[in-house]
Amino acid sequence: MEKINLQEKFGKFSDHWHPRLLGELNGQHVKIAKLQGEFVWHHHEEEDELFLVIEGTLEIAFKDKSIRLEEGEMLIVPKGVVHKPIAHKEVKVLLFEPAGTVNTGDQTEERTRDRIEKI
Amino acid sequence: MEKINLQEKFGKFSDHWHPRLLGELNGQHVKIAKLQGEFVWHHHEEEDELFLVIEGTLEIAFKDKSIRLEEGEMLIVPKGVVHKPIAHKEVKVLLFEPAGTVNTGDQTEERTRDRIEKI
Repeated sequence: MEKINLQEKFGKFSDHWHPRLLGELNGQHVKIAKLQGEFVWHHHEEEDELFLVIEGTLEIAFKDKSIRLEEGEMLIVPKGVVHKPIAHKEVKVLLFEPAGTVNTGDQTEERTRDRIEKI
Repeated sequence: MEKINLQEKFGKFSDHWHPRLLGELNGQHVKIAKLQGEFVWHHHEEEDELFLVIEGTLEIAFKDKSIRLEEGEMLIVPKGVVHKPIAHKEVKVLLFEPAGTVNTGDQTEERTRDRIEKI
């Protein structure tokens, strides 16, 4: 059992759209990622997904609106809801979602990560 | 689907050891609480519990050691592990644990909260 310092973990990688695993509890994964640019429209069939912005600004686009998250703001995207994360500048986020959740959901593309590495 | 600003939610209450619910996903609760003073030694029979410090310093005592969490640091306490949160000054924390988790675990005392209110 060891404490985890978020900024220390963010300092260990620089690539975008590549979530790293911080820990697991109750079958859920706690991950961090750096995001920059536009992601792919996707949804998760069975998993609700939480985004918490640690640094920067994250826009999450939906078919009918867009929600802008600043540092210290979070959003739960329910399963089945099509969304697209957009980061005009680099943003650092914390993610909570079930173990096994794939970042691109129902889509497969070059940024798809279906395995997660612990950091 | 609405975004949640942590500091705005913390501004809505001032009592200690009384977690409020921010949201639910995948059967898990995301809560915030203000802590000050010493809590009760307890464990959770079936639930792993995540503490993330948003502001202040939180000490979590275990039978054989103590872990000090500063702002931006988190700890996952596995089920069954006896622990006691201690806040020498007020600390603001985010908690992630299964829906139904009682704050005092196997113990019952005046700070026990077996129902959770959404804020």
